[in-house]
Amino acid sequence: MTTAVSDLLPTLDEADLNRVDAWWRAANYLTIGQIYLQANPLLREALKAEHIKPRLLGHWGTSPGLSFVYAHVSRLIRHTGQDTIYLTGPGHGGPALVAAGYLEGTYTEVYPEVTRDESGLRKLFRQFSSPGGIPSHVSVTTPGSIHEGGELGYVLVHAFGAVLDNPGLLAIAVVGDGEAETGPLEGSWKGVSFLNPVHDGAVLPILHLNGAKISGPTVLGRKDPAEVRELLSGHGYEVIEVEGDDVPGMHHRFAAALAEAWGRIRTIQESARAGEWDGTRPTWPLIVLRTPKGWTGPADVDGVQVTGTYRAHQVPLAGVRDNPEHLALLERWLKSYRPEELFDADGAPVALLGEQNPSGELRMSANPHANGGVLTRELDLPDFRDYAIEVKSPATLRAESTRKLGEFMRDIYRDNPDRFRLFSPDETNSNRLGAVFEVSDRAFMEKVYPGDDALGPEGRVMEVLSEHNCHGWLEGYTLTGRHGLFATYEAFAMVSASQTIQHGKWLEEADHLPWRAKVPSLNVLLTSTAWRNDHNGFSHQGPGLIQNVLTQRGTVSRVYLPPDANCLLSVADHCFRSKSYINLIVIDKQPQLQWLTMDEALEHCARGAGIWNWAGTDDGASDPDIILACAGDVVTMETVAAAQILKEKLPGMRVRVVNVVDLMTLVRPKDHPHGMSETLFTELFTDTVDVVFSFHGYPGAIHQLVHGRPDADRFRVRGFIEQGTTTTPFDMTVRNKASRYHLVMDAINNARRLPQGATELKEWCQAQLARHEQYVVEHLEDMPEVQDWSLGDWATS
Amino acid sequence: MTTAVSDLLPTLDEADLNRVDAWWRAANYLTIGQIYLQANPLLREALKAEHIKPRLLGHWGTSPGLSFVYAHVSRLIRHTGQDTIYLTGPGHGGPALVAAGYLEGTYTEVYPEVTRDESGLRKLFRQFSSPGGIPSHVSVTTPGSIHEGGELGYVLVHAFGAVLDNPGLLAIAVVGDGEAETGPLEGSWKGVSFLNPVHDGAVLPILHLNGAKISGPTVLGRKDPAEVRELLSGHGYEVIEVEGDDVPGMHHRFAAALAEAWGRIRTIQESARAGEWDGTRPTWPLIVLRTPKGWTGPADVDGVQVTGTYRAHQVPLAGVRDNPEHLALLERWLKSYRPEELFDADGAPVALLGEQNPSGELRMSANPHANGGVLTRELDLPDFRDYAIEVKSPATLRAESTRKLGEFMRDIYRDNPDRFRLFSPDETNSNRLGAVFEVSDRAFMEKVYPGDDALGPEGRVMEVLSEHNCHGWLEGYTLTGRHGLFATYEAFAMVSASQTIQHGKWLEEADHLPWRAKVPSLNVLLTSTAWRNDHNGFSHQGPGLIQNVLTQRGTVSRVYLPPDANCLLSVADHCFRSKSYINLIVIDKQPQLQWLTMDEALEHCARGAGIWNWAGTDDGASDPDIILACAGDVVTMETVAAAQILKEKLPGMRVRVVNVVDLMTLVRPKDHPHGMSETLFTELFTDTVDVVFSFHGYPGAIHQLVHGRPDADRFRVRGFIEQGTTTTPFDMTVRNKASRYHLVMDAINNARRLPQGATELKEWCQAQLARHEQYVVEHLEDMPEVQDWSLGDWATS
Repeated sequence: MTTAVSDLLPTLDEADLNRVDAWWRAANYLTIGQIYLQANPLLREALKAEHIKPRLLGHWGTSPGLSFVYAHVSRLIRHTGQDTIYLTGPGHGGPALVAAGYLEGTYTEVYPEVTRDESGLRKLFRQFSSPGGIPSHVSVTTPGSIHEGGELGYVLVHAFGAVLDNPGLLAIAVVGDGEAETGPLEGSWKGVSFLNPVHDGAVLPILHLNGAKISGPTVLGRKDPAEVRELLSGHGYEVIEVEGDDVPGMHHRFAAALAEAWGRIRTIQESARAGEWDGTRPTWPLIVLRTPKGWTGPADVDGVQVTGTYRAHQVPLAGVRDNPEHLALLERWLKSYRPEELFDADGAPVALLGEQNPSGELRMSANPHANGGVLTRELDLPDFRDYAIEVKSPATLRAESTRKLGEFMRDIYRDNPDRFRLFSPDETNSNRLGAVFEVSDRAFMEKVYPGDDALGPEGRVMEVLSEHNCHGWLEGYTLTGRHGLFATYEAFAMVSASQTIQHGKWLEEADHLPWRAKVPSLNVLLTSTAWRNDHNGFSHQGPGLIQNVLTQRGTVSRVYLPPDANCLLSVADHCFRSKSYINLIVIDKQPQLQWLTMDEALEHCARGAGIWNWAGTDDGASDPDIILACAGDVVTMETVAAAQILKEKLPGMRVRVVNVVDLMTLVRPKDHPHGMSETLFTELFTDTVDVVFSFHGYPGAIHQLVHGRPDADRFRVRGFIEQGTTTTPFDMTVRNKASRYHLVMDAINNARRLPQGATELKEWCQAQLARHEQYVVEHLEDMPEVQDWSLGDWATS
Repeated sequence: MTTAVSDLLPTLDEADLNRVDAWWRAANYLTIGQIYLQANPLLREALKAEHIKPRLLGHWGTSPGLSFVYAHVSRLIRHTGQDTIYLTGPGHGGPALVAAGYLEGTYTEVYPEVTRDESGLRKLFRQFSSPGGIPSHVSVTTPGSIHEGGELGYVLVHAFGAVLDNPGLLAIAVVGDGEAETGPLEGSWKGVSFLNPVHDGAVLPILHLNGAKISGPTVLGRKDPAEVRELLSGHGYEVIEVEGDDVPGMHHRFAAALAEAWGRIRTIQESARAGEWDGTRPTWPLIVLRTPKGWTGPADVDGVQVTGTYRAHQVPLAGVRDNPEHLALLERWLKSYRPEELFDADGAPVALLGEQNPSGELRMSANPHANGGVLTRELDLPDFRDYAIEVKSPATLRAESTRKLGEFMRDIYRDNPDRFRLFSPDETNSNRLGAVFEVSDRAFMEKVYPGDDALGPEGRVMEVLSEHNCHGWLEGYTLTGRHGLFATYEAFAMVSASQTIQHGKWLEEADHLPWRAKVPSLNVLLTSTAWRNDHNGFSHQGPGLIQNVLTQRGTVSRVYLPPDANCLLSVADHCFRSKSYINLIVIDKQPQLQWLTMDEALEHCARGAGIWNWAGTDDGASDPDIILACAGDVVTMETVAAAQILKEKLPGMRVRVVNVVDLMTLVRPKDHPHGMSETLFTELFTDTVDVVFSFHGYPGAIHQLVHGRPDADRFRVRGFIEQGTTTTPFDMTVRNKASRYHLVMDAINNARRLPQGATELKEWCQAQLARHEQYVVEHLEDMPEVQDWSLGDWATS
């Protein structure tokens, strides 16, 4: 028999109340100190204008609620030993979480200069929101955090991602009522429909309704509580409500609510783990906490109500430096927390506060799951070369490249049942990755019917029609030290582009913090690409995410365009081993020509870019007449086809073909660590010969990447110029002026030296394009075999 | 007394049932024909393999449900004259909506070559999903649509946007259960919390649960119906449910449900408009429709269940051309709709089908609201020059530029109470646009308390903490012919970047369709920019949306960076008058130096870029030694400061300052209609002098824009290089190596001719930067007056 919850977590008694309340007062005091004070941190002399920071920055409104919850969860941990992390949806409450880390001692462990005395307090206060100090949000610099809460909407996805395959972990996710208005947050309550009570941990959402955002009320804050209850209950939760501003009443009620929620979680998990689970979705608890915005702050300022309104959002007393009344009000407010009881003569937190802290790694600010790199176990990776496609000679075989990746991932799933997941918006099969279903179903906690395919509560493949959920879950999964891949339609990767950017920012900042261990990379596979959306329309054609990843720092951004299956396997293996990058891998799922043997692919991917001698007519002895470069699968086919046409029809012209897999090799090494040295760059591209570059994405991307390279103006780029519809890939290349015929004409127009026959060949190319246009115009009367025709004349002849 | 609903819309009788059912059968027949047939469209000979398209594309699964709803809504319109548009969330059901337009006659009106006879049917079928034909989605080419439904999540936001200030309009919004899994959709149910029953129209959401998406079940499709009811009821709706697959039973039940919903809407609106409304949110109706996926299609294929499963999603019979059993099954399936009853000898729809169509513009495929340009009334715009800031000389006055825009918009609100709205995620005041509240409150249908500020059910300013809602509402508003602006934090514009891209694609495509009238532009104001997020952290610093708008076609993309208030007013006036563009306006909200008088601003903005003679030392007679160019407010300040330093300390150096307002002027005219001619370009930038370009966004943007310009390599670009934190704007420019001192050093390093003293000046700059770094390091002990210091030495001296 297991221990009853009430034995583990007794009703809040007087001693515990004192600890919790003192800690909460201290946290609030430190929060206000960070916003206002540059000196006199313990108010040991009368507060004067010169003690006040010259510029008042920070967000008070949400902070007392955050600290209140934190204190009670700490108490829960103390009594139960529950392994717990704390995710702050309202990340503006940064000073509250910094205060928590300081009170728990973690802050000083991580930043020894912020000592536990008066001078340390002064540093703590002055660094906040100051140049050279720390940002105002719960950020990478905040120990215990894996969630910034700056761009709102992702606290639940991060929490759910963190507890997947982490059966012992509880993630407290505080959802602000501002954040609750966002689409991504509303779409993320459904995490419970994918959470397994046996092999996953638990998320306890705490919806903190303080009623207002920056300058107005919130929808949930003003809705009838019964309607809010219905909504959350409709999302599948058991709703526990706590409301008020009375102290100590609120302590007792919240402690009871938390005990009830934790008890419910424990019962769900214990019974499921004891084999008493029928596979239906448990009803997980959720707490709705209603407290006034800016709780415990000044009720009114200048005769206007502040606490409980949007006016408490940032700095409730704005005129402190100039207005003696405001200054006096601030002093009274600070003193209301009785700092003299909370800090000893040196300024260190008193013993009572220490008693409230859980020990060691159980402190939420020190929990290793929130510094997931320290828990990361490398993937047990099968040899990717075992999945190679046998390529006897280039361009003789067509295959679905991503299918090989699916087989590779199937075995990664098999060998790493506790630390690898695939996330996809319902496209695993569509993207030819379905082999993973040989070893794992899709996770699904709602009803499963007999005819369903690879679906069930034991499944660990994550499919939900929400890029936001997929991306966010993977972020939470990797930030807590596990590995995975997000596979999605290329165009719809833009839906979660802001998450890619924000996660990149997190990794960029973490790179500067020695105490943050590196975490597994965020791997994003873009497939169903712009060039091969034969059955979908223009909305499905957009290579935009590349543009955005290019803007990230070189420490983080990686973009790979493997041209075939063997290159894809090599790239994927590299990405799965890498740490703290955003790895973007772009390749289509349709059958495509295969170019390289596995050995060749290995060498090609290791270099990141290389000359394909077999494709061109370059003798290597001197500079070629023209360079045809390419990055991306379909454009590589067109480039090789163009080179073939030139070889056959203008044999005297020296054509070099360069293929680029690792896009960042194009950048100067001072701007990206993958950037080729100038020597290597000129070995591939010379420093004078014109380059016709055929690119998978928007042409401007190449122009910005090669900027600063020798005579960058000589790069003529063809790529996706925003032309599309439901059509064949060859027609797509024509519409975007990137077909083999366009490339041949570009080559002729820019070559250093033109053999006889060039003019005729240009005319021939124009005739080919005219024939194609005519074909398209006439197709209604004489529809060609689209499948073969899509390869054009060259590949089929 | 008003007429009872039952008098207007009688119970479905036999005659009406026949019309509705025949129309539905015809729509289904035409849908399948589009997916499968290239010949023999009326099955007047036995179906053979050669009648089948070579490549089977399209989505059957959702289509019969879409047509079923459409038929019943048409009947409602016939009886009541209700002005109605139809938004198809599951846009994959394109053939169903094309079929509807064809049956209503609109298709032939718009595309006369698709005649109403057998030859027209053949065209209709063959064009679908074919090169040179029409895309597979409900797209711009589909008459009656303002919503593609390709990227899922936006059907409700478009519907709500369409009915704002359209009191007579009903928007039917079919939400697929796949789409219902997305974050943006879940976040958009709350539209009712902002919808006024007097001055707005109504949205009737129809949640169509067919249970499956591409390859698996959906969350809502598998949830307990009671839980789904709770969820939707919690969102604030009255839920009406219809379930089944029996015909004619479903016709009767759905007709009754629709009558109930419409009656409810009518009651809400009539009582509110009769003055009987207390201002609380009405409980609007919503229909949950449960039908099998692929309803009326083949139940099983090759012994495997198809209808009712994900296998019906696209093409349920895949092997028709090669497998005689599949071919026979297809023939039986098509004949089950009894085409011989539906089309006359010529192949035209029979009279019974015509009786089912509403008349003229009441046909949903012909409703002018879905071609909003035809209803657009220009804004009554006050003279923007009336809001000018008086600038006596450059850089002597600081002002919050967006505050002037707020005053301009206040009067636009006043003068256009039925056709202008501002949309913002709770940032109207924060962005200094609060003057609008002098004439309109924020719209809010939830509880309003006495202390609330500019808030209430009569309000027409749209604030919701959801970029998705704001952006999508504005799209729906402009696509139906009205005007507005979306104002948001620059960094968080990336949250809705995919909407910006998808709307751009819509406008790009519409540009090719003569029958689509141009609509008001989508105006996006990016404020709280990367350089001025003094009180927020790195997450709030990202100028990424510019990168994305640059990838759109020149027919659509516009990016403006007004350096001051007068330029902002001129740009805004231009944008409010423009049609069918994406206008991105980037300017910060903080106090900033003002440069130009209104007359100067007018001329400068009309040109889009110009030389600021007063800022430089260029004599105009010959080429300068260096050009300092800039685009963006903070970087303009740094550029002018750099020029000032050079003027003072290296008076012999000829420096030209060029400011760019309209970013697209940099592009070659062949790539963008705003592109400067080469003559104008060289007048500003010469063709040989090096340019130090200081840009608001990521530097790569400029590199791609100037590609192809004379010697583009000479452009050295400084910009946001992804360095940020909570700090002052001046420190931001230092961190991003874009400060005045960096620009001076760049100028010296790249000038054609260097006067004496250049080396010393570089050393001086380095010393200034070192002094700044030291300042930052030491600030904890000696915090400067950040506000003044942020302007650096020059502006304060």
